[in-house]
Amino acid sequence: MSTKSTQIELAARPVGDPKSSDFNIIQVDLPEIKDGEMLCRIIYQSLDPYMRGRMDDAKSYAVPVALGSVMEAGCVAEVTESKNARFKVGDIVNGRFGWRTHVISDGVGVRKVNKDIAPISTSIGILGMPGMTAYVGLLDIGEPKEGETVVVSAASGAVGAIVGQIAKIKGCRVVGIAGSKEKCEYVKHELGFDECISHYSDDLSTQLADICSDGIDIYFENVGGKVFEAVLPLLNSFARIPLCGLISRYSHVGEFPGPNLLPTLTRSILTNRLKIQGYIITERWHRFPEFEKDVSSWIDAGKLKYKEDFVIGIENAPEAFMGLLKGKNFGKLIVRTSEDPTL
Amino acid sequence: MSTKSTQIELAARPVGDPKSSDFNIIQVDLPEIKDGEMLCRIIYQSLDPYMRGRMDDAKSYAVPVALGSVMEAGCVAEVTESKNARFKVGDIVNGRFGWRTHVISDGVGVRKVNKDIAPISTSIGILGMPGMTAYVGLLDIGEPKEGETVVVSAASGAVGAIVGQIAKIKGCRVVGIAGSKEKCEYVKHELGFDECISHYSDDLSTQLADICSDGIDIYFENVGGKVFEAVLPLLNSFARIPLCGLISRYSHVGEFPGPNLLPTLTRSILTNRLKIQGYIITERWHRFPEFEKDVSSWIDAGKLKYKEDFVIGIENAPEAFMGLLKGKNFGKLIVRTSEDPTL
Repeated sequence: MSTKSTQIELAARPVGDPKSSDFNIIQVDLPEIKDGEMLCRIIYQSLDPYMRGRMDDAKSYAVPVALGSVMEAGCVAEVTESKNARFKVGDIVNGRFGWRTHVISDGVGVRKVNKDIAPISTSIGILGMPGMTAYVGLLDIGEPKEGETVVVSAASGAVGAIVGQIAKIKGCRVVGIAGSKEKCEYVKHELGFDECISHYSDDLSTQLADICSDGIDIYFENVGGKVFEAVLPLLNSFARIPLCGLISRYSHVGEFPGPNLLPTLTRSILTNRLKIQGYIITERWHRFPEFEKDVSSWIDAGKLKYKEDFVIGIENAPEAFMGLLKGKNFGKLIVRTSEDPTL
Repeated sequence: MSTKSTQIELAARPVGDPKSSDFNIIQVDLPEIKDGEMLCRIIYQSLDPYMRGRMDDAKSYAVPVALGSVMEAGCVAEVTESKNARFKVGDIVNGRFGWRTHVISDGVGVRKVNKDIAPISTSIGILGMPGMTAYVGLLDIGEPKEGETVVVSAASGAVGAIVGQIAKIKGCRVVGIAGSKEKCEYVKHELGFDECISHYSDDLSTQLADICSDGIDIYFENVGGKVFEAVLPLLNSFARIPLCGLISRYSHVGEFPGPNLLPTLTRSILTNRLKIQGYIITERWHRFPEFEKDVSSWIDAGKLKYKEDFVIGIENAPEAFMGLLKGKNFGKLIVRTSEDPTL
């Protein structure tokens, strides 16, 4: 009896914000596995802002998802059949399996998840890609020094929440920028940021200037738009801007209205000797062992907290993803596609 | 009998382009030198684009020149009287003496010029601040690799000419952007750049795209404006942009008209993993010994050429400086304020 997989394909390239009709949910019969392959039942599927970029065919760092192909995603899965020497039935694995419930894999790019460190869902969160993005961007590009002021956009999100907490561990003063009042309270009182401002405020620039009266030394950028524009005049000499995302801009169509702020930025780069650097975490994966060691120990010591926002059922993935781009999630957004046997 | 010094002071802060009335030429009587001091007769005075920034009182990396104070400049001078143990009469020295003909110095920040390496005027040019700016920006921030494409703005200028020639020494393909046809010919045929385009061309972007069909790996930025905008869509993954100047923007007043290109830049920083970094050469002066050794040997070997554009007489400094901001100079602009005894 063959296994059925429910999967979500890209039906159309969105113009502006993605909508339901840009996705297709279908069911397919999987063939029998061959030598070297394994069958995996997906338990958790990650939803991340970068996936919006994969839906476009604009030139970018990654190949776009082809129309009619399954949407990409990192997943946590259980091996249910195996003819692969590296993996046995019952193993919990992490791989880029996509938006689906079951997959046949040849094991390339798949790693075993250690069930003893933390819940297995964290391998697509704080102990996976978003955690690595935070750790490497802040430490390797941001190079935080004790006493510096760090501003983190999307501060309650999967990456921002970790950036700010690591910056606190490194002795920095940390200011978050988040959406709702509830998120801001969480960032300040649960995660221990020094301050958190809502980007919905009419006077974001004024509030940020008041709170950052000694200027900003690191701005961890994953939003773009008006948050960046509020940060720009406050940057100190030798400030660093690691840039790993621009969620506010992904669905923008056409030119941006003036004034042109490019010369304002380049002037600041010159006069303040700024460093702005973009990075893609998959290109810096050699840092994983040290990351896993540090972050695990910080979680154990209670210095790093994380929040997961679960959506149940793959059929709800498109709507959850559309909500993510609008900031409707609260914490790392994860689709639970089947029961977690480790719970 | 006291020494008279002719000096040029900042009379008014320019609004937009500087004009003659922003400068005051006066003559002062210098007092007798005291113990530890020396009297210097200035031979060569540098004129550089950064001086425009010192005329404004906007927040920048350096303190502005106060109204009624002597304009700042690096100079080459001869010691004519000395009560300073480090310097004796007849020494040729380099110091930040300002726009004037004579100065009393306590020797702080002053270095002896080696007359045997090259003409002493080069100590404010290829073997001084502009040379260091080129060397450090290209090598330390740009990190050129053999076979890469390097684009250099202001390619016939004091910094750009050196950047491009060092990039050629490092095995890069080098494309210059300069003003007049004469300058472009010089850059290509005398300095040995692979290509040179005029920024006066109506189709700068198209020409640049044609010539850089494999994209751009390093853009050495010291101009800003439309040159940067033409470069932006051509940047390759992992391109580096050392930024040491923005001559096209220094005299701009008010906002810049749209469209807003800031999001275009930040998108490229993300998708291409760009590094953009501003720097001020005085903060990287520890590289001077290695710079002097390399550049001297390249000059000796005929691998580095330079061109100096002399203006005779300090009274002509303001007009020459205003011309510099419009690209009227051809080569490193230098005011000769008195006879060079080494010639």
